[in-house]
Amino acid sequence: MDERDALATLAATLPAAGDDAAVIDGLAITTDMLHERADFPDGTTRETAGWRAVGASLSDLAAMGADATCAVAVYAAPEFDEKELAAFVRGASEVCELVDAEYVGGDLDQHTEFTTATTAVGRVEEPLRRDGAEPGDAICVTGELGRTAAALRRFAAGDAESGNDLFRFTPRVAAGRALRGHASAAMDSSDGLARSLHQMADASDCGFAIEWDRLPVHSAVDAVAESEADRRECAAHVGEDFELVFTTPDPDAALAAVEEAGTAATVIGEVTEEGVVADGKPLPDRGYTHG
Amino acid sequence: MDERDALATLAATLPAAGDDAAVIDGLAITTDMLHERADFPDGTTRETAGWRAVGASLSDLAAMGADATCAVAVYAAPEFDEKELAAFVRGASEVCELVDAEYVGGDLDQHTEFTTATTAVGRVEEPLRRDGAEPGDAICVTGELGRTAAALRRFAAGDAESGNDLFRFTPRVAAGRALRGHASAAMDSSDGLARSLHQMADASDCGFAIEWDRLPVHSAVDAVAESEADRRECAAHVGEDFELVFTTPDPDAALAAVEEAGTAATVIGEVTEEGVVADGKPLPDRGYTHG
Repeated sequence: MDERDALATLAATLPAAGDDAAVIDGLAITTDMLHERADFPDGTTRETAGWRAVGASLSDLAAMGADATCAVAVYAAPEFDEKELAAFVRGASEVCELVDAEYVGGDLDQHTEFTTATTAVGRVEEPLRRDGAEPGDAICVTGELGRTAAALRRFAAGDAESGNDLFRFTPRVAAGRALRGHASAAMDSSDGLARSLHQMADASDCGFAIEWDRLPVHSAVDAVAESEADRRECAAHVGEDFELVFTTPDPDAALAAVEEAGTAATVIGEVTEEGVVADGKPLPDRGYTHG
Repeated sequence: MDERDALATLAATLPAAGDDAAVIDGLAITTDMLHERADFPDGTTRETAGWRAVGASLSDLAAMGADATCAVAVYAAPEFDEKELAAFVRGASEVCELVDAEYVGGDLDQHTEFTTATTAVGRVEEPLRRDGAEPGDAICVTGELGRTAAALRRFAAGDAESGNDLFRFTPRVAAGRALRGHASAAMDSSDGLARSLHQMADASDCGFAIEWDRLPVHSAVDAVAESEADRRECAAHVGEDFELVFTTPDPDAALAAVEEAGTAATVIGEVTEEGVVADGKPLPDRGYTHG
C-alpha cells in the first residue's frame, strides 16, 4: 500500500477526517511530520525549520477557511542543543504570530534524525471544502507559485541565505478566512498546483482548465529556471508553496475579499465538465509526494 | 542539555505552555511522540499502540481537568501495512470513544522505526494546575498503580496477551473533570508516582508525605513482584500508569466526585511543608525518563 492508498483507507475509516484538516465540533485540527533528510535541505536553519513545519500545519487550517488558534510541535533530534531548540521555537512562534495564533510548545524526543511533528488547531463553523467546484467557476490561486522550487535550487547552489528566506512563507490564514462565502472549493497547494487541481477535480467531479500564461510565477523562479518547461515544472509540480487554490462563481468579489485580507490572488482558469488541462493539453497528476 | 533542561527552556520561552497540556483561549492541547523501540515492547499490537499513544495524550487533558474533544496522530512506519494501519486506527478510535472524544485521523509518514506522534485537544476554562497544593491537603491517586510495570514484565516473559490487556488503559478524563473545584493540584503519573510528587512539590513549593501501605497497587503487580521492594518499585517508580495524582483540602468530597465519575480514588498521604517522603524516608526523584 503506498501513502496515497493508505491515506484513502484512513479517510474512509474516519468520517470526520478528510480535506486538509479534520473538522469536529467547531474545531479544525491538522497534524504533519517532517524530516531533516526529506524536507529540510542542507543549510536550512532550525529557525526556518520551525517556521516551515508549523507554517505547513497553519496552511492546512487556511485551506479550511479556519481561524488559527494555536500550534504545538514535537521536536526530535539526536541531541538537544539549546541554541538550535531556541531557534526552532523562535521560528515556530514567528509564523504563528503572523496569523494571530500562538505557539504553545510541545514535546521533546530523542531521534537519530531531526524530525518534527506539528499540529495546528483553529476554529471554523462552515469549513471550505474541496468538493464544491462547479463548471463555470473561476480557478484562482493566492500569492505566487514556485517559491519552494526556487528555494531548493538556491540551497543546492550553496546559497542558504536565499533558500532560508524563500522557505519562510506566510500561511494564507487571512485569505482563507476571507474566502468563506466566496470560494466554492479550496485547498492548499502543498503537493503542487497540478496535484491540487486533480484532487479538487476528483472531489468535485468536474474538470479544471488552466492557462500557463496566467500563472503567477514567483520572480525567484525566473532567476533559476533553465527553460520555459523548467519554469512550468517549478510553478506547477514541485509544490510545497502553501498557497491556496480555490474556485469561485464570482471572482471579482472573491479576489477583492482576499486582497482586503492582504494577499494577492489571480484567476488562472475555469472549472469545466471534465479533464485537467493546461492550455488544452492534459496536465499530469504529478507532484511532490511527501517522504 | 538533557531532556528535562530542554523542557524547562521551552516552558520558560512559552508562557502558555507548561503543566501536562498547554491551555489557550479555552482550549487544552498536548502532543507526544512514541517509538517502537522505547515505548512498545515486542508483542505490542498496533491496536494497543494506537490506543496507548492516543491515550497518553488524552491523559494529559485529564490532568488539566479538560473535556476531551478529539485526537489526531501521525503514523510513521517503514511500510504501510493495511491491517496494521487499520488496527492502529481501531485502537486510537476505541480509547477516544471511552472518553467521549473523536479520533479524527492524521498523517502518514515513512520512517525506519514505527513512530507515532499524537495530539489531543479539549476544552477547559479553569484548568487544574500542579502548583496549588497546600500543607494539610490530602494526596490522592486514581485507580491503581503498577499496571504498566506488570505489563512490561508480562511482555518480557512472552505473555503478550496479558501485556496488551494491561497496556490498554482508561484515560482519567471523567475523573479529571470531576476534580474541577475539588483538587488544589493535579497531574498525571506518566513519569511515575515518585516523580509526579516531586514535580508537584516543586511547583507548589511544599512537601509531600505518603505511606507505602496506602498505595493502591494493581493486582497484576503482586503476581510479578519478587519482593516488597520490587513491588514498591513497580508502583512508584516505573510509571506510565496514566493515573491522576492530585491534592485536595476536602478528600471526602473529592473522592465522592471522582467515584461519581466512575473511577476509584485513594488517599495516600498528606501535603507537608517540605521534603518528599514515604513512611518518613526520602522518596527518590527517580522514574521513567521518556526515551
